Amino acid sequence: MQLDVADLEAYARGCAILGTGGGGDVGIPALAARAALRTHGPVDVVDLDDLPDDALVMPVAGWGAPTVAIEKFESGEEIVAVRDAVERWFARRVDVLLIGEIGGGNGVAPVGWAARLGLGLVDADGMGRAFPEGDQVSMHVAGVPPSPAFQADERGNVLTLEPVDGRWLERLGRAGVMAFGGTVTVADHVMDVATARTATVRGTVTQALRIGRALETGGLDEVVRACAAVRLAGGKVADVERRTTGGFARGVVSIHGTREDAGRRIQIHVQNENLLATEGDRMLACVPDLIVLADEATGDAVPTERVRYGQRLVVLGLPCAPIWRTPAGLRVAGPDRFGFPHEYRPVEEAM
Amino acid sequence: MQLDVADLEAYARGCAILGTGGGGDVGIPALAARAALRTHGPVDVVDLDDLPDDALVMPVAGWGAPTVAIEKFESGEEIVAVRDAVERWFARRVDVLLIGEIGGGNGVAPVGWAARLGLGLVDADGMGRAFPEGDQVSMHVAGVPPSPAFQADERGNVLTLEPVDGRWLERLGRAGVMAFGGTVTVADHVMDVATARTATVRGTVTQALRIGRALETGGLDEVVRACAAVRLAGGKVADVERRTTGGFARGVVSIHGTREDAGRRIQIHVQNENLLATEGDRMLACVPDLIVLADEATGDAVPTERVRYGQRLVVLGLPCAPIWRTPAGLRVAGPDRFGFPHEYRPVEEAM
Repeated sequence: MQLDVADLEAYARGCAILGTGGGGDVGIPALAARAALRTHGPVDVVDLDDLPDDALVMPVAGWGAPTVAIEKFESGEEIVAVRDAVERWFARRVDVLLIGEIGGGNGVAPVGWAARLGLGLVDADGMGRAFPEGDQVSMHVAGVPPSPAFQADERGNVLTLEPVDGRWLERLGRAGVMAFGGTVTVADHVMDVATARTATVRGTVTQALRIGRALETGGLDEVVRACAAVRLAGGKVADVERRTTGGFARGVVSIHGTREDAGRRIQIHVQNENLLATEGDRMLACVPDLIVLADEATGDAVPTERVRYGQRLVVLGLPCAPIWRTPAGLRVAGPDRFGFPHEYRPVEEAM
Repeated sequence: MQLDVADLEAYARGCAILGTGGGGDVGIPALAARAALRTHGPVDVVDLDDLPDDALVMPVAGWGAPTVAIEKFESGEEIVAVRDAVERWFARRVDVLLIGEIGGGNGVAPVGWAARLGLGLVDADGMGRAFPEGDQVSMHVAGVPPSPAFQADERGNVLTLEPVDGRWLERLGRAGVMAFGGTVTVADHVMDVATARTATVRGTVTQALRIGRALETGGLDEVVRACAAVRLAGGKVADVERRTTGGFARGVVSIHGTREDAGRRIQIHVQNENLLATEGDRMLACVPDLIVLADEATGDAVPTERVRYGQRLVVLGLPCAPIWRTPAGLRVAGPDRFGFPHEYRPVEEAM
């Protein structure tokens, strides 16, 4: 299968849904990817089973606050610097790119990077969604060491991180994000294909495209069917509390139910992504399941940094990839990791 | 020449004077160096003229806020991790250590590191004093590139920095300092001996020892003679304004003159080091010259983090190394770099 210019819009809409509010806006990465595909041609999307065991997989992502990412664009050189740093470290060529985070702009940008570098893109990612922190990837849960990791900015600065564990990957990486001005291009958890087969969430590139096509043909109802999603509520944004601190966009979105949900009061707690949906004392959904705020009219996911007073939204819950529901997965990305007192309960049991 | 346990006290007192308030307290580094010298034997202090042109010189220092350094100690493993990172990068052995900053604890700790690593110590450093920021080294003024630089902490975390220029070395390095909790062990401006001969401030290890011996034998008066120093004032600390922000200890020390200086009001502006001494509208001394606050009774330099209300101090001005008085040196470490409106004037012209 190939991704080409004609697929980009649907693919980006699917990535936005999987972004669960974060992963960065898809608009600018889609423009950059379009330009790269036009210049360099379509990108091969390859299954890990079709690659040799020892091929080198480079997971890539942008780190930072999405509120910054919509104003601070990449130059296109960052990914070259990151690839060069990885190849120098491992003293061999990178064979294929892996999307670190399929959600939001982070799912879209690597399409352009793959075109630019002339590399294929694995049909998988490290999350099956978007998460805010650097160790919240399936590779980490699967035991792939977090060292080394590589960051590059648009000026040509490069950082090589050798953290002793996942929390230090996040801590050192976030320091880099802030030093670089809020966003940075990253490769981490570089591994061989044999490792990647069990350490990634597979099929998510084609899944994003499928969700986007469902949205095109049947709107949100079709997305709900395609994702086994749960409609949690519908309503109007009554308040947005938002601040960019510590390299993250944090806040709370208050939604007042309308129509069949009139009288309901929903709160969405955000750290780049929508992490927790509550209604009074009741938990509707929480990480690692996906909480999506979708525009009632278009069905498009509304990212964290674009939620505004008065928007009419539908709140969807999507089941996360199975790895996140394991004890190891919940330790890395469950409600407790984010300081929420709630116990995890699968979103499909919520209603 | 060799440095051994018997030299440490005088050497550390000399480093404290050259610290101009910063470089970190000498007490704990002196204890660590003593232990290392006892275990591994004395350290050779070698002149750059006696080393082969292509020998690899590793400049080393602790970065961070001295207010943190007196509470957060090194484990001894940091320097090994830094050396390993340098040797991996350059694919060759490090031949000799260079003190990045002769002032304060940063002049003392490398004696222990050299003993630990079984390496000699060059009779030179990168400053001839202490400076707060990472690019304020003679190597930078001499055009040695700031990339790569290496940081390691006591847990085993390592960062390799490839900054595009000196300001980015400081910015990325300071982000590492903060992520690591306020202090970190660093190697930067790694170079060969041929380069080091013109890119360092030479003779400063033996100079520190000479100042310490002068203090032992003749007190402050002897130090003033040995350093061509200027006595700017004597008085009592009337106020200390101090905060640790952005990885630095910043503040202002107010001194009320006593005896022959009765009625005088001196202010010392601090960013880790004493940067500027003023009396009303008049500038007494400023960076890159050295401003030393010395205990009136013992003659010992009092570092930034130990200045207290009521102390009786003598304020000395010492001329800096000639490289800092060049236009390039003043750009990197003159009053303008720190945001002071004053024009630089050599301290010996002040009185």
